[in-house]
Order: sequence, then C-alpha cells, then structure tokens
Amino acid sequence: MPFEKELIIRDVKYFKPDGTVGEGNIFIRNDKISKITPPSNNADIKGYNVIDGRGKFATPGFVNAHTHASMTLLRSYADDKALMDWLQKDIWPIEEKMKRKDIYIGAALAAVEMIKCGTTAFMDMYGPNMEEVAKVTDESGLRGVLCRGIIGIFNGEEKLQTNIDLFKNFNGAANGRITVMFGPHAVYTCPPDFLRKIADTAKSLGAEIHMHMNETLDEINNCMKEYGKRPFEVVMETGLLDLGFLAAHCVHLSDNEIEIMRNKKVRVATNSSSNMKLASGIAPVMKMLNAGITVAIGTDGASSNNNLDMLEETRLTTLLAKVESLDPLAIPAAQALQMGTEEGAKAVGFKNVGRIEEGYKADIVLWNMSGVEWQPNYNPISLLVYSANSSSADTVIVDGEILMQNRELKTLDEEKIIAEFNACANRLTGK
Amino acid sequence: MPFEKELIIRDVKYFKPDGTVGEGNIFIRNDKISKITPPSNNADIKGYNVIDGRGKFATPGFVNAHTHASMTLLRSYADDKALMDWLQKDIWPIEEKMKRKDIYIGAALAAVEMIKCGTTAFMDMYGPNMEEVAKVTDESGLRGVLCRGIIGIFNGEEKLQTNIDLFKNFNGAANGRITVMFGPHAVYTCPPDFLRKIADTAKSLGAEIHMHMNETLDEINNCMKEYGKRPFEVVMETGLLDLGFLAAHCVHLSDNEIEIMRNKKVRVATNSSSNMKLASGIAPVMKMLNAGITVAIGTDGASSNNNLDMLEETRLTTLLAKVESLDPLAIPAAQALQMGTEEGAKAVGFKNVGRIEEGYKADIVLWNMSGVEWQPNYNPISLLVYSANSSSADTVIVDGEILMQNRELKTLDEEKIIAEFNACANRLTGK
Repeated sequence: MPFEKELIIRDVKYFKPDGTVGEGNIFIRNDKISKITPPSNNADIKGYNVIDGRGKFATPGFVNAHTHASMTLLRSYADDKALMDWLQKDIWPIEEKMKRKDIYIGAALAAVEMIKCGTTAFMDMYGPNMEEVAKVTDESGLRGVLCRGIIGIFNGEEKLQTNIDLFKNFNGAANGRITVMFGPHAVYTCPPDFLRKIADTAKSLGAEIHMHMNETLDEINNCMKEYGKRPFEVVMETGLLDLGFLAAHCVHLSDNEIEIMRNKKVRVATNSSSNMKLASGIAPVMKMLNAGITVAIGTDGASSNNNLDMLEETRLTTLLAKVESLDPLAIPAAQALQMGTEEGAKAVGFKNVGRIEEGYKADIVLWNMSGVEWQPNYNPISLLVYSANSSSADTVIVDGEILMQNRELKTLDEEKIIAEFNACANRLTGK
Repeated sequence: MPFEKELIIRDVKYFKPDGTVGEGNIFIRNDKISKITPPSNNADIKGYNVIDGRGKFATPGFVNAHTHASMTLLRSYADDKALMDWLQKDIWPIEEKMKRKDIYIGAALAAVEMIKCGTTAFMDMYGPNMEEVAKVTDESGLRGVLCRGIIGIFNGEEKLQTNIDLFKNFNGAANGRITVMFGPHAVYTCPPDFLRKIADTAKSLGAEIHMHMNETLDEINNCMKEYGKRPFEVVMETGLLDLGFLAAHCVHLSDNEIEIMRNKKVRVATNSSSNMKLASGIAPVMKMLNAGITVAIGTDGASSNNNLDMLEETRLTTLLAKVESLDPLAIPAAQALQMGTEEGAKAVGFKNVGRIEEGYKADIVLWNMSGVEWQPNYNPISLLVYSANSSSADTVIVDGEILMQNRELKTLDEEKIIAEFNACANRLTGK
C-alpha cells in the first residue's frame, strides 16, 4: 500500500454477523475493518478521520447479485408489454444501436443510482464493450463482477472471445475490486455444445460462470421439447456447474434440479421485482434455502424492475417468500438483510466481504434513522427491511473509500452524468 | 367562503383522468381546480400565488383506503411472528395501555408520514378515542374518513355508542374534510345479530360501513364451521352490504362471494404488504376488477406493513396482480395509479376527489423528477409507479391548502411530533 488511510465511524449502531444489533466504534485501516471497540471509548481515535455515527445504522453494503447496468438507458421506455413483444419490438432494436459511449454512460448512471441506494457491489452481465462497465467500476469505487452475456446462436465465438479478453484484461483490476466471470446467456440462446466450449475455456482460465436459469415456463417447456431434459439437467452435462456457478432467476425448478443445485453448490440470485413485473412466476426461495443453497438478491436490469434499489428488492424477497410459503416466519428481517449483503458477497465470489467484522473489507453503508418511517426505533433491522426506503442511505464506503457522504457523491459527478446520459438516451430512442 | 385563495401550478406535467400525461397550468381557487390552461400561456396568472411546476409531475393525492393510523406506535415492536402469537403477546397488551394522548400522537406521526409520502386522504379504523384522530385530521389538513373498530364480543354496545357519537360529532367536520363510517371489525369478532344492530343504526344515520373481510383462511374456515356460510354470505344477511360497504383485505373469496360483492357494489381496499408480511395470501385482484368491483389500495397499520407508503403499496399491487394472474399486462402503470388515487376516493365515499380536472377538489401531489431513478424520462407514470420511491413527494395540496412544499411540512411540526411520539412509545412499551 502506498499510504495508510484511517477512518473511524464513531458511536454507531451496526448489524452484527449474528443478525443482532451492536453498538461501537468501527475502525477502518486502508481497505479493511481493523477493529471494533465499545461506544464512547474515544481514547484511541486520535489521528483518524472521524465520521459521527450517532443516529445512523451501519450495515454491510448491498451486493446486487444480478443486473444489466447499462439497461438504465431503457428504463420506462416500454413497460406493460408481453415479454417477446417487448424484447423484439422495443428492447432489441434499441440495444442494436448502443455504442461504446452508451454502455459507459448507462453504467455510470447505474453506478450513481446504486451508490445512492446503499449498494457497494454488483454483478453485471451485458453485451459488447463490457470494458466500459469496468471503467465505470474503477472510477466509481464500486466493487464489480463483470461478464459478457454470450448469446451463442449469433456469432457465439466472437462473443466468447470478448469474454476471454475481458477476463484477461480486467480480472483483478482496480486493486482487486473488479473480477470477471463468463456469461453464457441462457440455455435457450446457447446450444449444449457451445456451453461445453464455454465451460472448457472458463476452466482453463480459472473463471466462474454466471447464467440466466429457469426464468419462465416457456423456457422450461422449450428445453424439454428440444433436449428431453430440464435446463439444470442440460447445463450439468456441459461441465459448467463444476466451475462455481451463479444462476439468476431460478423461478421454475423441479426437485431434481434443486438436488443438482445443492450437490453442485450452485449459488442463486433471485429477482423478485422482475419476475413479478414480467409475470414469470414466484421463485421457490424457501425450498432453495431449506436445501442449503446460497440465495442472494439481484434487481435485474432497470427496464424490467424498474430501478436498481436493493433495499426494495430485499423487502420484496422476504414478503414474497412469506406469502409463497404461507409462513409469516419465513426469512425474518435479519436473514433478509444477510441475503442482500453477506450471502450476495458469497454468491458473486467475494472473500471477506459482507460482514461488519474485524478483518473484513470496509464495504459499509450508514443509514440515516431520523426520518418519520424509522419511528419508534425498537429494532433498526426490522425498520430498515420493512419500513425505510433507500433515500435513507446517507454514507457509502467501499474498500475504506468514501463514495457518498450526507447523500453527496464523492467519486462521480451526478449532474454531469445525468445530462450526458439523457443525451444518449434521447439519441437512441428518438424520444 | 370567508376569502378566496388562489394558487397556480405553472408549466407542470400532470396525470390526466384518461391515464395519459398532460402539460399545462393548473389553476386552483379555494378548494377546487378551477381550470387547466396550456403551458407557458401566462397571460392570466396575475394575482395568483404561483408554484413552478417545471421538473415536477402532478398527480391526484394518494387515498389510503385502509389503515390504523395510531398503530405507528407499534411499528417494529414485534415483527416476524405468527399472527395469533403476535396479537396476543405483543399487540393487544400494548393497545390495552393506550391512552387518549397516545391515540393523538400516533395519528399525528401517521399524518406526518402520509403527507411526506404523497397521501392526501386516509380511511382510519381504530379503538377508543377516535375523536383524537379527527383532531389530527383537522390540524394536519388531510382528508379523513374515520370509524370506530367495533369488536362486538367485548362491550359491543358501548363501542357502537362511541361510533354513533363519532358520527354525530364529526361527520362533515373540518369543512367537510372529515366523514364518518361505522366500523364493525370483522365477522369473527361480531356475531350476526350484533352486525344487524350496527346495520340498523348506521342506516338510520345514513352512514356507510367499513369492515375487515376474508383476510385469512382460518377466518373462512371458522366462519364455515360456525355459520355454514362464508363471511360475505353471513354479512349480506345482516343488511350491512346495502348501506355502502368498503371491505378491507378480501384475500380469500369464492365465486359466489365475488358475485355478491358485484351485486351489492361492495368497494374493496386491497392490502398487499400486510397480506404478504402476515402470510395471509394473495388477493384475487384481477378477478375482482374483471367483475367490475372498485378496488382501492390501503397500507393497513404500520405494525404489519411496516410503513404508510402508498406509492410502495401501489407498486406492490400491480406487481402482485401480474404474477398472480401470470399476465404481464395486468394493471398497467396508469391503472395502478388510478387505483391508488381516483378509485381510492370512490372507495372511501368522496365525491369530486381523485382527478386533476376542472371542478375536482384540489388534492394534488407534485413529484420531483430530478432524481437518478427518474432518468431517462420517457414516461412519468411508469417511472412513478415502477421506479421512484416516496421521497420524491415534493409538494402536497389538499382542498387547495399547501400541506408540504419542498418536503417541508406547513401544517404540522414534524420535529415536535417525533419527540412526543417517541416519549409515548417508550412509556407504552418500556423499551
């Protein structure tokens, strides 16, 4: 390290790894939490940069385990449409026109939005020019896991090559804040032979896999018709599940598929808003959790959500699990918060991220508890998960670096990004 | 009218009654929208108090069609519990201890929260001292429909009398902003004979009815066991459905019950968050809408939601309807917004409330569209319903009176209310 950064969050209530609320001083040295001491014991804070934590609730930052950042450009462009109609008439024609600078500015706006909602890391899958998303990750200070969404049925080889290049150029970049996976898009866009090729390539590079799985009933039915097997059964035979596998959606699963996922230690990003908005179905989250599968939370892209708000998504995950299982005790608030943070970090392959604990990365959000929706304050965890909205995100820290304080961004120029973003959106859509 | 108030919202995008977006100057005289003129035609704005509407989106205010305002005192006090355990061990013992000043301050905090979330009217059912909720309604400037929640199995007569008194003292109060209904709590807390008595009393006074209906499967099963009929069949025979009837929840409905509701013009307040959080089930909202039933939206109380955020509740209503019906076209954004506003006004019995249209009451919210989650701005309706959160509520107007501007409350002292509220909450719970 070229120099030491020292930061202390003083007298703050915080979310402990055991799911309870602690109170103390959180010491940060460089990129890590170096110690946590009892509150109001200020003997050793000299020389530290101090943030007053009173009235704030510190949690690990949210990890958005599945998104398509640059799709912010298509937010509200075409809602309330049937899926294929929407993709074919609205989304794909615009995506065809997206250039390098669009990918950059779309991801930059997404970064602004994620930081303002208390997100510290994201897993991104999109089309060409993913190196622009890497650039935004670097500049914003966020942690990012990137992959090229490889639709194998058109120019698959070329796309695979761009994912290889992305891996070689950016895995471990930005002081390790960027990692790269391989992103076969889905079983309906990549034939098994091609999936096998991706598996072999990723294996030779030591890369993990991110893929859309079992999102709609149509997908399952077509897969059965084409291969006589369900998606996870097809994918298992390609070797992809042996490399470290993060599956998005997972809405329609057979018992055998859940058994495969359990065996292969598949990690899941559930996407409640998107699955509801597109009427895909309700994912069997409790079944997966009961099988011991790691379930993280993702927003999906902003054209099917329509925001990148992980707090809202976390609330929806627990509410939907309760009503789906008809069990009011399903996913209590503390577990929901862990799914959005620590389980997210595990799901996207981070080590030592997602806990407020000595030795862990200093990826921390301070939530302002002064708003009316935080009163009375019997239980900050419950209030955050069931009552507050993301405008309570006050301060965001990643790797010990302050990305936002008092809701003011420190690494990105919000106003400039919004102006440039809207110019690109208008050019793309002619609206 | 003692004097004329004149207000104009200039150059504002607004939600038209036909579900599209208009742009113009909204003129308000006293309590009503007096005319709407094309934008940037400023010939006749002299003498008016002007609000700059540029960058804002004007909608009718949300109508929270079912809540228990003073239950804010119990927010986050006991979450993630089974329903009867929660009621018996946590909620009821505290409610027993609530005094007049608790009801007042609980409702006052709820009023602060509702205004800050863009709500202009609410339908409230709670226990003793409902006149304190009337006082808060008067002071806050909100529109309120109040009823005494009558649990007939304990001291039913006494409670019925307080609802009679409430009606006599407050129906039409606060320049007509307060109306009163009768509030038989539910079929499992009021025997049919007693419901008949409430019906006769309400009929003699010309009052309408608000009641919890068909919330849980247990309720249905117990009703079948006790009366050999389902709740709406029992209630129909008491005469209550003939008086103008607003039913909360309506989660589990037979086809015959939907037919009864259609025939009797029952209006519904759906409560998605609460039904999810307590694992009650998913209401058949599309079935009700397809039968031509008026479906409005309510938050329920803050101990089962846990906030009074109608924007969040509106989003959840459409998302849940889409996934429940497996139809992505179910309840498009404009219809969802109408359900939260105009249909809400109809459901709670208002006339000329819930539209931005000449002659309608000036109950208007201006949403600030500058935030990152509003970009790009292809469609403000879609952005409000699917992307924004309630912190975008900038200005709230009821009856032509400004209750909030630039997020600053004009009729209530937020800081003072929060302090007094927390003192009451701490006294009640000993926490």
